[in-house]
Amino acid sequence: MKKERIYIYDTTLRDGQQTPGVDFSVADKKAIAAMLDDFGMDYVEGGYPGANPTDTSFFQRKHTSRAKFAAFGMTKRPGVSTSNDPGMSVLLQASSDVITYVAKSWDYHVHLALGCTLEENLESITSSVTAARMAGKECIVDCEHFFDGFKANPQYALACAKAAYSAGARWVVLCDTNGGTQPSEVGDIVNAVKTVVPGECLGIHAHNDTEQAVAVSLAAIDAGVRQVQGTLNGIGERCGNANLVTLIPTLMLKPYWADRFEVGISLDALAGITKLSRTFDDILNRAPNDQAAFTGSSAFATKAGIHASALLKEPKTYEHIPPEMVGNHRRVMVSDQGGKSNFIAELKKRGIQVAKDDRHLDTLIALVKEREAEGYAYESADASFELLARQQLGAVPQFFRVEAFRCMVERRYDSNGCLKTVSEAIVKIIIDGEEHLSVAEGHGPVNALDLALRKDLGRYQEELADLELVDFKVRILNGGTGAITRVLIESHDASGQRWRTVGVSDNIIDASFQALMDSVVYKLMKNRELAGHIAAE
Amino acid sequence: MKKERIYIYDTTLRDGQQTPGVDFSVADKKAIAAMLDDFGMDYVEGGYPGANPTDTSFFQRKHTSRAKFAAFGMTKRPGVSTSNDPGMSVLLQASSDVITYVAKSWDYHVHLALGCTLEENLESITSSVTAARMAGKECIVDCEHFFDGFKANPQYALACAKAAYSAGARWVVLCDTNGGTQPSEVGDIVNAVKTVVPGECLGIHAHNDTEQAVAVSLAAIDAGVRQVQGTLNGIGERCGNANLVTLIPTLMLKPYWADRFEVGISLDALAGITKLSRTFDDILNRAPNDQAAFTGSSAFATKAGIHASALLKEPKTYEHIPPEMVGNHRRVMVSDQGGKSNFIAELKKRGIQVAKDDRHLDTLIALVKEREAEGYAYESADASFELLARQQLGAVPQFFRVEAFRCMVERRYDSNGCLKTVSEAIVKIIIDGEEHLSVAEGHGPVNALDLALRKDLGRYQEELADLELVDFKVRILNGGTGAITRVLIESHDASGQRWRTVGVSDNIIDASFQALMDSVVYKLMKNRELAGHIAAE
Repeated sequence: MKKERIYIYDTTLRDGQQTPGVDFSVADKKAIAAMLDDFGMDYVEGGYPGANPTDTSFFQRKHTSRAKFAAFGMTKRPGVSTSNDPGMSVLLQASSDVITYVAKSWDYHVHLALGCTLEENLESITSSVTAARMAGKECIVDCEHFFDGFKANPQYALACAKAAYSAGARWVVLCDTNGGTQPSEVGDIVNAVKTVVPGECLGIHAHNDTEQAVAVSLAAIDAGVRQVQGTLNGIGERCGNANLVTLIPTLMLKPYWADRFEVGISLDALAGITKLSRTFDDILNRAPNDQAAFTGSSAFATKAGIHASALLKEPKTYEHIPPEMVGNHRRVMVSDQGGKSNFIAELKKRGIQVAKDDRHLDTLIALVKEREAEGYAYESADASFELLARQQLGAVPQFFRVEAFRCMVERRYDSNGCLKTVSEAIVKIIIDGEEHLSVAEGHGPVNALDLALRKDLGRYQEELADLELVDFKVRILNGGTGAITRVLIESHDASGQRWRTVGVSDNIIDASFQALMDSVVYKLMKNRELAGHIAAE
Repeated sequence: MKKERIYIYDTTLRDGQQTPGVDFSVADKKAIAAMLDDFGMDYVEGGYPGANPTDTSFFQRKHTSRAKFAAFGMTKRPGVSTSNDPGMSVLLQASSDVITYVAKSWDYHVHLALGCTLEENLESITSSVTAARMAGKECIVDCEHFFDGFKANPQYALACAKAAYSAGARWVVLCDTNGGTQPSEVGDIVNAVKTVVPGECLGIHAHNDTEQAVAVSLAAIDAGVRQVQGTLNGIGERCGNANLVTLIPTLMLKPYWADRFEVGISLDALAGITKLSRTFDDILNRAPNDQAAFTGSSAFATKAGIHASALLKEPKTYEHIPPEMVGNHRRVMVSDQGGKSNFIAELKKRGIQVAKDDRHLDTLIALVKEREAEGYAYESADASFELLARQQLGAVPQFFRVEAFRCMVERRYDSNGCLKTVSEAIVKIIIDGEEHLSVAEGHGPVNALDLALRKDLGRYQEELADLELVDFKVRILNGGTGAITRVLIESHDASGQRWRTVGVSDNIIDASFQALMDSVVYKLMKNRELAGHIAAE
């Protein structure tokens, strides 16, 4: 059976830009457009030329080579001709293959927002589509509030869709603008629309206000639409748009869809989707969602528990798809529930071979359990786990020894009567029998300690230059200011590797120092190829 | 038409505990169970007694008054009688109203994980259910891998469901354990199950591996199941479970569901769901998801753009439900019109009357906005908010003034060669023009500072005797050890009142000190009946 083609329309740069807190620069937009184009999206919507200076400047040239590049804007204003509407002329002159118009299709909004007659709105749609086609562009019409509009006045909503199609729009897109439509409501409405526009010219644009944007999009495909709109990691106005990072692997890998449909993305490209998703989060400067479908670091993770032993026997039994197909990987986590075979498997993944009857293994397991009972979280700190294991099982050289540290925070009024807080740390280190005493000031005691520790590490100094701390998390494990504190640190270096370390103490400075030390020692070990590749993502 | 009842089964404390990085203490579990009970869940699953010490100790008594309290465990091992299975006897003796068994229903897993015959597994189900009923408990059977099992061997999957029902299970729950089932596949399978178990005895347990756990759950309800399982904020193994914080308002507020179904949660309780969701994130010590459906801070936010002007004309036109029904609020991120009246309402709630044209009010609003942009979270720190408001609007006496503090953490080897860390703090305070210099040692710098601050507060000393810090949370607001840190402190006193204060700084000690100071000053204000009753919970 020949599979039907589903077209993917990415609106990360337009609807995604509506996300509270997201504000792309032109450079961001260029980088993202290139990523989307490489990945194999069919359409990349670049923005709304004329709406703001960034978007106007971005449309001075086309930013995709494979994907069709789309400019978004409103249908012409009622009461003026297309040639007399300044918004329209910006749109027609923008460097794009496609113009995507947003058009009202809910009678109530025509009156409220446009203040014109229903007929005038239909005429705006028709003449705007015609103008785009006369300019040699492919035309797409996003019918705003289509589902709510259809419920209020089905005839009018259908008339809008039909006007767009009859004027020559390649696609008529049904938008669930307010995001409240339920997947089960979609089928009947799409079927009604198919009486005026064929399914192969229909698209769906869903929002996540009831956490069902993916399901609404798929329900629409089931009912016959062939274009789906969404964004990277589901960013977008309010609760976001349909998440393409979930939709694409679902369409390509779940037999219910993959048996009937195909998309323009190769299986090779699909294996890059985890990287695509995480790189995009890097551009947004936010931590990736560990629990994200397909691409999250926990998406194929199992805590040692009722499932772990079966998982180790046969991984596929607890995985809905093979993680490598989306460039992700399996994680069976070490935890206080774990048995011996768990441990051996974990160590093997890190390149550490150990016999089941090695007594060092028993010592290691006992130590890990004892430490986890104290609050260490090795499942979140793979580098500290590996370091501990290698220290117990094999030889990790003692690169240096910290003899002592002291840190001081002082707050007082300066001579101008302003409050001032100063943090200072002193670290005494022995390297090759020689004492190195360093002092540094920082933003807070941990930062000062970090700077002092790495200020003079003798012959190791140079190779630590590219070590950077990218995340620092503090968790108080029980109440009160005298509580046990857990610190998790994430580090990376120029190679792109990331590793996580942990420290636990009733003293937050002490806990932070342990995690810092582990990070530095792990990096030195890694540089000597003594460490596994756990963190190469 | 009489509405059909949907039963909500919360598994936050059991499947939620499987989330990588989540590890509840017994105290956490008690607090969460109480929140779930108050909110109106029908069932609260407390954990897996016998699996680990925390859960075993938690089941020494029942932790709900309204909701049925459920203990989770496996069906009896094949080859032994229920009375000879140690896991079974722990389960039967646990303090619970309900036993929820997980039972294999995929033939392949019976062979792989249990290593027994298909018949033996059916017998385990039957005798385990019987044992629970003999012990006077309601019994629920979670059929693991039901959908995958049904696709592989429908007869056997149905036989498992039937065995559970025939033995007297109140509910047979269809679990999509691996999370790969698509909503469109659910209807046919549920219809097949209904030939052996009536819909009013069927439940659904979905996972979010294709971001469709909510949609799968709703598709199952559409097909006839009447119990739905999920967790707060959708935590759970891998990508999480069905998110009850989304499912409940969807069922209660979207006409497609609300016209036909009802749940055991009142509209009043529903207005507390945003608070429930955020308090739970506080317990997890993680930032709430701004884009979460219904409860996220962006869920009803609109950026200045194509929608904002229409939204200002008529808010409902761009909102799928009224935000106040879920205790959330609208955010229009242009000139904030709702701002002022919002503030007046917030202040009134704390017993502070202020006129709309009071210029101190404008100053306060500006100050709060500025501070929140810096990272202060007044929503979670009601006492700090009230203190700030009273300082701006009225007179809060200056009880004392902190002139300076210094704290020091030193780690070195003692004379016996043992590592020792000492923390010491010195605080200089002016009370009634007189200088009080105090020094204290503590577990870590913040504890030392806390002890030093409260060591000699002159004439206030005595009335602070019952002030206790019960929680201390640290959140790093951006990456690296030089990052901005937010400290939240929860305090209580002999009256049973609890209040929360906040501090923000790039120095963790400084941030902690601000929150400590606010707590002490709030307590002094409260003792003079200058404070509202916000925190009397």
